Order: sequence, then structure tokens, then C-alpha cells
Amino acid sequence: MNLVILTEADRLDTQRFSVADHRAVHLGSVLKVGPGERVEIGLLNGPRGVATVEAFRGESVILKAQTWVEVANPLPEIDVICALPRPQTLKRVLLTSAMMGVRRLHLIRANRVERSYFQSPLVEPDQQLPYLIEGLSQGKLTRVPQVTIHERFRTFIEDTLPAVYGEDNAAIRLLADLDTSETLHQVLNTAPGLILLAIGPEGGWVPFETELMRKSGFRAFHLSRAVLRVETALTAALAQIELLVQMRRG
Amino acid sequence: MNLVILTEADRLDTQRFSVADHRAVHLGSVLKVGPGERVEIGLLNGPRGVATVEAFRGESVILKAQTWVEVANPLPEIDVICALPRPQTLKRVLLTSAMMGVRRLHLIRANRVERSYFQSPLVEPDQQLPYLIEGLSQGKLTRVPQVTIHERFRTFIEDTLPAVYGEDNAAIRLLADLDTSETLHQVLNTAPGLILLAIGPEGGWVPFETELMRKSGFRAFHLSRAVLRVETALTAALAQIELLVQMRRG
Repeated sequence: MNLVILTEADRLDTQRFSVADHRAVHLGSVLKVGPGERVEIGLLNGPRGVATVEAFRGESVILKAQTWVEVANPLPEIDVICALPRPQTLKRVLLTSAMMGVRRLHLIRANRVERSYFQSPLVEPDQQLPYLIEGLSQGKLTRVPQVTIHERFRTFIEDTLPAVYGEDNAAIRLLADLDTSETLHQVLNTAPGLILLAIGPEGGWVPFETELMRKSGFRAFHLSRAVLRVETALTAALAQIELLVQMRRG
Repeated sequence: MNLVILTEADRLDTQRFSVADHRAVHLGSVLKVGPGERVEIGLLNGPRGVATVEAFRGESVILKAQTWVEVANPLPEIDVICALPRPQTLKRVLLTSAMMGVRRLHLIRANRVERSYFQSPLVEPDQQLPYLIEGLSQGKLTRVPQVTIHERFRTFIEDTLPAVYGEDNAAIRLLADLDTSETLHQVLNTAPGLILLAIGPEGGWVPFETELMRKSGFRAFHLSRAVLRVETALTAALAQIELLVQMRRG
């Protein structure tokens, strides 16, 4: 827990917060902080800051915020489209997305996605939140990725994407694909304000899917010589994008 | 399971192998292959190939190899130095290392590594192997990373590294570090034959450790603006190295 993520529900007054769940346990047993000591905090979808531990009251810890700093969002913003994975993998995709600063996560149907995955409790926002918060706490970020579920592939690509992103906007659409030799630096050669990054299911996209995405402006790139797991592919692609953006800046 | 990893213990004769564990279950229940169908195979530390399913015998599947192809090792070779993480994380570090083609994995002591981690059953090679094989099977690779454990940080840096890698060889030594602004493309500006990549513990290296590593020729680089988990940092660094190597090639 690199950042204690606080919500409005934890707030006692303008400066003080009371936390009573695993965060209190972590503060007491792992970080072993005592009264007067400082911890880093972040307000969900708000600023980051530093607090002092004011008191331990039963199972609660009272934190008093001392300073707040706004967190700048990364540029380019990255929205991820991910074929809905099995629940255990979805937990790691949620955590990774939050940890690495993804803005929106579109979980979509694909040919190689089992229908049962859409019945998992994890498609519910309140079930996703703990994994998102764990990711923010790890990554020292505060903005929660906005997660949406889309049960029809073609509808998502042909109707939802244009509705959400505009027919011909400046977003760069990228598609991690084993069957291409172009690497990310060849397809990401401008400095976009927004990147839409598509990560396929275990077993990959089927040809119909990659063709429809290419027609819709997605550019395929070769991520790695190894066949990666879904959450590893997501991490690898986000890390490569971050490196390229750093390089283009200087 | 993208590749059925076979060992000499599975061999029936020059071409035929019998598999009877989770691999047989996966072939029957997940891939649902029948007699005559083809599956991709890999011989542990050997070639990759294609086999046909010859028969199901009780709980065993008999595979007959049809073709074998040698797998080229990646260039540059990458050896990873990783502060020994907690067992649950170590499983993912082992899997990721195998999946992404790491040659050697040095698991070392560091100030922020708990002593109890060295008592975990997972420090034993036979306990590590299933996670390594799972990684190879996912990544479609066959070479098992060579894993070694080093219980003294200073001894490892000052004595073991020179003994294993030579005092002044061509290996590039890289250190993922939050407290530096140089990015990987600034420190990795040649085409090395071998990279030594160091990944710190949860909570990071302590100053003594980074200083000793810098004195021993490690160059620090800034991996990501987010604070990453150990296995995520490993994936991110390997992915960035792979992109840079692809770029330098053309």
C-alpha cells in the first residue's frame, strides 16, 4: 500500500478521515506507523497528499490531512479495449489498469470469450472497485478507471466507438497482434492526445475481428516475440507506450 | 497452454510421448483435441514442434512428434536480478521470466526482503519448475531460466557478479529506479549481447544498495511514472527492452 486511498465516506471533517478496514490493518501491522507519523494519502478521483496519524481508536485509524497536491493526468490518455477475460485474470486487468493510469477500460465480447464470463459477479462495478483501489494504492494514483461492459463485438466497434470517440478524431487506435511485424514505434509515430489500445483474449482475436478493427482505423503492432497472458500483454503495451512518449518528449 | 511442454521423462520412443497430468486434462477438456489432431509441442530445453494426438489411454494422452524446429534464443540475452519477493509474487516472477525468455534469474537478498522468504519451499528448484514450465507453455518457449538464490547482497554484487560475468565484459547493467529521470532509451544506447536487469523489492532498494550497484556499473533508468508491483516492473522493463532492440534493428 504505497498510498492510502480515501473516499468521501471516510471523511470526518474537512481535514480528518477515519479508516477502519484492511487499510487500518495495513497501517498498524505492516507499515507499523504510530501517532504523529506521516503517511501518503490519495482522495479517490481527487488530489494526493500527506497525512499524520492522529490516533488509533479501536479498529479505526484517524488520519489528518496536512497537504494536498493535484495529480496531473498522463498524456497521452490511454483508453483500453480488452476482450473480457476469465474472472481471475479480470482482477489483474482491473488492478493493472488502475496502477498504470488507464482512463477508461472497455471490456468487450469476442469470439474467444466464454459467455459465462459475462455472468461473473466481477462485471458489477461494486465488485470491481476493490481491485481498482488496490491498483491505485500500488501505483500512487487516484483516478479510478471508468469500466464499461459491451456484450456485442460488432456493435461496440461500429456504433459505440464512433459515438464515444467521434467518427474521425485524433485518437490513435492500436491493436496488439502476433501476426504483424510492425512494431509500436512504427505505428505510433505522432504525439497523440489519446490512445485507444486493444488487447485480445487468450487464444487471440479471430480474423473477422481483426479485419473489422483494421477497417475501423486500428493499426496492428507486434508486441513481443513471446505469446503473453492478457494482463502481461496489457502491462507490456502500456510500458512500451510510456517509453515511446518519454522518447518523443526528449 | 499454447505449447505442450514435454520432458525426457514423458518419452516413450524416438517420436512418441505419453503425458498424464494436467497437460492431459487440458488437452482433453479445454483444447478438446481428438485422435489425429495436431498440437504444438516443445521439448524442455530443446526444440519446438508439432505432434499428432495418437491415442487417449486411460488418463494419458499419447503424442507423436511430426516435426521439430530449433528455437533461436533472443538477442540480447537478458539475465534478471530480482530481490527475492514474497512467495505469491515469486510464482509470478518465475512464470513471467520463463514466458518472456529470461536466461538466468538471480534471486537476491536486499534490505527490504524479509528473511522468512528464504525459508519458503519455493526457493527449491523442484518447487519452481511447475511455474517455469507454465511460463514456457504460455510464451511458446522451451528454454528454462536458470534460477539461483543469493543470500548476501554485498557478496553477490562484489564477488558473484564479477565471477559469473567477468570484471569488465560487454554486458550492460541496468537498474530500474524511481529516483532517476533518465529513461531506458538514454541508458541503453548500444546493441549489447547481454543485459543484466535489476528489479528491486516492494518498497524499493535502500540507498546503500543502489550506490553499491552504481559503483558496480549499473545504470539507473526510470521505468514508469507509476509505482509498479515487482512482477509488473519485470514485465514492463522486459517489454521496453524488446521494443528498443526492435527499433535499433530497423
